[in-house]
Amino acid sequence: MEETFSERRVLLTIEYDGAGFSGWQRQAGYRTVQEEVERALTKLTGKPVTIWGASRTDAGVSAMGQRAHFFNESTIPTQRFPLAVNTFLPPDIRVRAARDVPDGFHARFSSRGKLYTYRIHNSSYACAIRRNSTAHIPVRMDEGKMLSAAQTILGTHDFHGFMAAGAVPKTTVRTIYDVNVTRAGEDVTLTVRGNAFLYNMVRILAGTLAAIGQGRLAPDVLQRALDTGDRLVLGVTAPASGLELTRIYYNIDGERYEENP
Amino acid sequence: MEETFSERRVLLTIEYDGAGFSGWQRQAGYRTVQEEVERALTKLTGKPVTIWGASRTDAGVSAMGQRAHFFNESTIPTQRFPLAVNTFLPPDIRVRAARDVPDGFHARFSSRGKLYTYRIHNSSYACAIRRNSTAHIPVRMDEGKMLSAAQTILGTHDFHGFMAAGAVPKTTVRTIYDVNVTRAGEDVTLTVRGNAFLYNMVRILAGTLAAIGQGRLAPDVLQRALDTGDRLVLGVTAPASGLELTRIYYNIDGERYEENP
Repeated sequence: MEETFSERRVLLTIEYDGAGFSGWQRQAGYRTVQEEVERALTKLTGKPVTIWGASRTDAGVSAMGQRAHFFNESTIPTQRFPLAVNTFLPPDIRVRAARDVPDGFHARFSSRGKLYTYRIHNSSYACAIRRNSTAHIPVRMDEGKMLSAAQTILGTHDFHGFMAAGAVPKTTVRTIYDVNVTRAGEDVTLTVRGNAFLYNMVRILAGTLAAIGQGRLAPDVLQRALDTGDRLVLGVTAPASGLELTRIYYNIDGERYEENP
Repeated sequence: MEETFSERRVLLTIEYDGAGFSGWQRQAGYRTVQEEVERALTKLTGKPVTIWGASRTDAGVSAMGQRAHFFNESTIPTQRFPLAVNTFLPPDIRVRAARDVPDGFHARFSSRGKLYTYRIHNSSYACAIRRNSTAHIPVRMDEGKMLSAAQTILGTHDFHGFMAAGAVPKTTVRTIYDVNVTRAGEDVTLTVRGNAFLYNMVRILAGTLAAIGQGRLAPDVLQRALDTGDRLVLGVTAPASGLELTRIYYNIDGERYEENP
């Protein structure tokens, strides 16, 4: 009789403070989120665990809603994972949810969309308390101008100009569903939701909008970058500290799965 | 002719992330906010500087609006201090404002009142990103019950029961002007404004309200503590990480000085 290998595919929702990590992806000699979560799951289950993240966030980038799946070979019930794995994790990473997903599901390739948040502390002085979750721009920005320019990218476009040099994706066409820029006192927040994003795309957008808000770039550079694919008409890549991967959307068993619990 | 000693008294507004400090007050062998600010001012002005803080916050307690005064013996104009001293400070401390204050002004003894904020992440799992600016309580709290109980302390009372053992103030009578408890999603925030506070008073209040919110203490324990002065009827002292010294109020030259710029 053939041995039956029972395997359950589990999707985790993970929050982390990016300041203490050399990004998501495992790299020998560096502290990464992937390695910490794999180590905790391995300790908890007693079997070597590899996790498959939805997004390879860079050093310094935080997440409220990163997702990653793994194969649970233990007898631990899915709903027990958050509480159990958190006891093995350092305090700058928390697993916020776990759910079963069907065969063939992949945290990265099954994603239907992502929401990113970019936070700018627009004040004479940088923020001490939130220094790891904001970028600092001392020159006053016009958030109305930023919002109006940001709407240029709504819809489906070739975002070749919005990509860091060196990246080689299969296609540079992406769809942006929503983009917003709001101000609360000295804090200006950009949110952008799309089907997928190119490498550094949100940080290039944030750096460009910040320059537009300060009057250092014309609002039409976004349209020019879409038309020409030229990275050089856009602003600098904004710092990692301002970026948060907020949410990742899926369609699971015919239902939209999007909430951060 | 007698030498004229020209001295200007300058009041600073200081933000800091308490997580990296053994509190405000200078202590040999420990990293403290006072020592870091004094070191930066000494480097900047070229003369040894002592600062006089308004509040000796404990290890782990943050501030958006700590105040401290010092004697500026340099020729640096007052309005230049924030930008100049920030270049000598570590990123977890920022000087946000500087202004001249009259002879006889003292950051601590001239204070007319303070506003504290206490933040509780009321969720199954602790917060990774804001772990240093929140306390974590997994059991759901009823914020309406907390607010209603909190109003017991409004007005002038003997707060003897709301004080850590060992403190020996001249009087334990204090006046509370405002108290509020609000919820935004999983975050419950207590704000309390009064003329002055006893040692650990806000953290004892927060710990007690958290217990009331969870149904572990009766709402009338606050009244009983006011009536009897008995610390033991109240809840535990809540963790330092949730506490922020938000604002300190003065009357300077006949005008109220309260804003955080």
